Amino acid sequence: MADSPNCDLKSLSPLQLFERVTEQGEKVRALKAGKAPKDEIDAAVRMLLSLKLSYKTTTGQDYQAGLPPKDLVLINNGTTKEEDEDLVDPWNVQTSNAKGVDYDKLIVRFGSSKIDTDLINRIERATGQKPHHFLRRGIFFSHRDMDQVLDAYENKKPFYLYTGRGPSSQAMHVGHLIPFMFTKWLQEVFDVPLVIQLTDDEKYLWKDMTIEKAYEYARENAKDIIACGFDVNKTFIFSDLDYLGTSAGFYKNIVKVQKHVTFNQVKGIFGFTDSDCIGKISFPAIQAAPSFSSSFPQIFNGKENIQCLIPCAIDQDPYFRMTRDVAPRIGQPKPALLHSVFFPALQGAQTKMSASDPNSSIFLTDTAKQIKTKINKHAFSGGRDTIEEHRKYGGNCDVDVSFMYLTFFLEDDDRLEQLKQAYTSGELLTGELKKVLIETMQPLIAAHQERRKQVTDEIVKQFMTPRKLAFEF
Amino acid sequence: MADSPNCDLKSLSPLQLFERVTEQGEKVRALKAGKAPKDEIDAAVRMLLSLKLSYKTTTGQDYQAGLPPKDLVLINNGTTKEEDEDLVDPWNVQTSNAKGVDYDKLIVRFGSSKIDTDLINRIERATGQKPHHFLRRGIFFSHRDMDQVLDAYENKKPFYLYTGRGPSSQAMHVGHLIPFMFTKWLQEVFDVPLVIQLTDDEKYLWKDMTIEKAYEYARENAKDIIACGFDVNKTFIFSDLDYLGTSAGFYKNIVKVQKHVTFNQVKGIFGFTDSDCIGKISFPAIQAAPSFSSSFPQIFNGKENIQCLIPCAIDQDPYFRMTRDVAPRIGQPKPALLHSVFFPALQGAQTKMSASDPNSSIFLTDTAKQIKTKINKHAFSGGRDTIEEHRKYGGNCDVDVSFMYLTFFLEDDDRLEQLKQAYTSGELLTGELKKVLIETMQPLIAAHQERRKQVTDEIVKQFMTPRKLAFEF
Repeated sequence: MADSPNCDLKSLSPLQLFERVTEQGEKVRALKAGKAPKDEIDAAVRMLLSLKLSYKTTTGQDYQAGLPPKDLVLINNGTTKEEDEDLVDPWNVQTSNAKGVDYDKLIVRFGSSKIDTDLINRIERATGQKPHHFLRRGIFFSHRDMDQVLDAYENKKPFYLYTGRGPSSQAMHVGHLIPFMFTKWLQEVFDVPLVIQLTDDEKYLWKDMTIEKAYEYARENAKDIIACGFDVNKTFIFSDLDYLGTSAGFYKNIVKVQKHVTFNQVKGIFGFTDSDCIGKISFPAIQAAPSFSSSFPQIFNGKENIQCLIPCAIDQDPYFRMTRDVAPRIGQPKPALLHSVFFPALQGAQTKMSASDPNSSIFLTDTAKQIKTKINKHAFSGGRDTIEEHRKYGGNCDVDVSFMYLTFFLEDDDRLEQLKQAYTSGELLTGELKKVLIETMQPLIAAHQERRKQVTDEIVKQFMTPRKLAFEF
Repeated sequence: MADSPNCDLKSLSPLQLFERVTEQGEKVRALKAGKAPKDEIDAAVRMLLSLKLSYKTTTGQDYQAGLPPKDLVLINNGTTKEEDEDLVDPWNVQTSNAKGVDYDKLIVRFGSSKIDTDLINRIERATGQKPHHFLRRGIFFSHRDMDQVLDAYENKKPFYLYTGRGPSSQAMHVGHLIPFMFTKWLQEVFDVPLVIQLTDDEKYLWKDMTIEKAYEYARENAKDIIACGFDVNKTFIFSDLDYLGTSAGFYKNIVKVQKHVTFNQVKGIFGFTDSDCIGKISFPAIQAAPSFSSSFPQIFNGKENIQCLIPCAIDQDPYFRMTRDVAPRIGQPKPALLHSVFFPALQGAQTKMSASDPNSSIFLTDTAKQIKTKINKHAFSGGRDTIEEHRKYGGNCDVDVSFMYLTFFLEDDDRLEQLKQAYTSGELLTGELKKVLIETMQPLIAAHQERRKQVTDEIVKQFMTPRKLAFEF
């Protein structure tokens, strides 16, 4: 039974298990390459699957080639994550808490500021608009220098919005929409220009993917982003692979950032190693550069000092901590930030949704039936084991994924509060709560799909053409 | 007093002192290993400490084993330069030999091939032209895959030339002209397209220089390059800062190279450290990318597989060893190379000319009088101390810088041979040889200055505009 992986695997550390899976994967590839007998290959594949299962059971995460288990990830300049801390960086989000990441702790660790009632009220006064429910409900919960943006805005000084997406696959899920839904609202209430970066170069560097595929995903993702309802006269969407070869201003800012950041620094911030390719090592400068208005001379008429505001999920903060550190040294204003929480996986808030696991997400391409099935089958419930217990003790909204999703997508505050009361008291059953979510998501996704159909290649081209927007600078 | 290091150490150069410390360190280790008497070991240790003190007094830095005073330089993937080897990399050229770098050893160390009579004859047959005197005289002395370029050429397959310059100052010296003079000849006899890279981004990253200044130097240097007589219909000159923002093809190749080279590799090849900025670390990909024709879609009609031939000084070889290593992994042909020796400083062939030391070089802006003064005052002489001795024993052409310069700039083989005979026999005095050099350089520089005056900003713009050249692909 030497070939059975299960007899002794329980005693292995996650890293040892990781190495066993990697070895077995190589063995399978070698057998296939050597055209070994089918039954030999099949046995090796079974062994591989079994090892992967052990890995998942032990670590709670899927095996990913080249990505060792995440117990040693550097989070912040040079400091290692404590064992009981949540893991949050641009490539990983993980916590042992079913309620999700502890965001108050994260604010302290990252050195950002909480979005409090005062700030929300100030945004309301400045814009004359009711704050977005993402603000009211703490979904955008942290910021850097938002006060300064409001100071400038109140003094009629211009600013612009910058957000982005790494186009790792054709299919986007609802979690990907969060920053774009909020950015759209910000653009509408402040009436400012918006630039959206698609980091197809990053995906080419990090994934086993051709340049052509990464660029294709960028254009496909642009369609979903445009379908959120952005105004073509006020929005510039760009693929790095495209735009870097179109704008001397962009490359000049990249080189400036690259001159002022050492390998030691990116090692501390992003955990890069000597074995990483030089493309990864220098990439952070490419995500940093759109924070400076001179990267977009066609929009800002070459002006260098226009304030930038970046709405993004908190896991992108390391890039912009680095950017804010460099900015004064290259004579540029620091970008301000608004951070969102992560969108939880259907299976629970311990991690964010992943485009690579179809069951962890509701995709923007899912049919009404798929949405219904996924929610009913996979959405982690905070309800009790039996109807009797549920009626007696009530459900737990803090860990119930259906309720969490409703806080993102059900705009009606009163209805949400009613649902919370009814679920917590036991009046509302899990199946009934899921039904509300299904009835919320189905029309939302259908409407998105309808709008996406209208997004022709010609419209994508318009958004992605470097040009002047409807603002004077 | 033989044991006291201080009596004679003041006359030693930092490098000589470094070698003395190293030797003494080895002596101490040998004594200890051989279990020599304690007082003998103690004496050697005292001597070592005293030598280290002298080293520190002279250089202002602590002695570090393996780190010679100028710079620690790794020459080849992971291998350190031997103590008696010449130092040759993109930033340093140094040798202790007055005849200059030992190029035969360099060929072995770099793994390139010697340009022998067979190859020179083959170039003559292929082009129907008398080989350039840089080939006849071993000034271009080493190559990689030049046979393949000739195979392709004889089979009517196209290739193109790529060379470049780092614009570190406005003033270029005659040594900088060598690759361009040779490249011009290659372009004429083979009738092929030529691209010339000006690495203004590199100079910004390496020097204490603004982006604007680096770009200005690039444009000024372009004028001197154009004044060599390149054909605008067959030549594209580009500044990285400009062209990177104009060509998506160029950036795509850069990212491809960056994905396939690790920090470990550039550390081994270029000696980068963790304290280097990420711009330096990723720069080698930017010098690599013009080796691939798809970086110039406007010239090659998007064709990906056109052979590249790079004439350059041998110190640039590390970039292209790296490029040749990556090429097959990104589906591109390896560039071929032709390597030149270094152009010696006026003071002697131990190092190459430097634009930062005005007396080490004849500048392209020097007046006839300055040329005369510099040669008379600074050109290292291989002549004897007195006229009588010189007449009796003759001069040494191997170390005489005036004679070396004539091998670069005096095209007439017979005249050069006569001068050599006359100088070696003692018939020709140092002053007379210098007079020949002065009379050779003055009209050459004056003619260059005259041609440079004709190079208007408009002409520079034409050369630097991405466009189709006079070739069909």
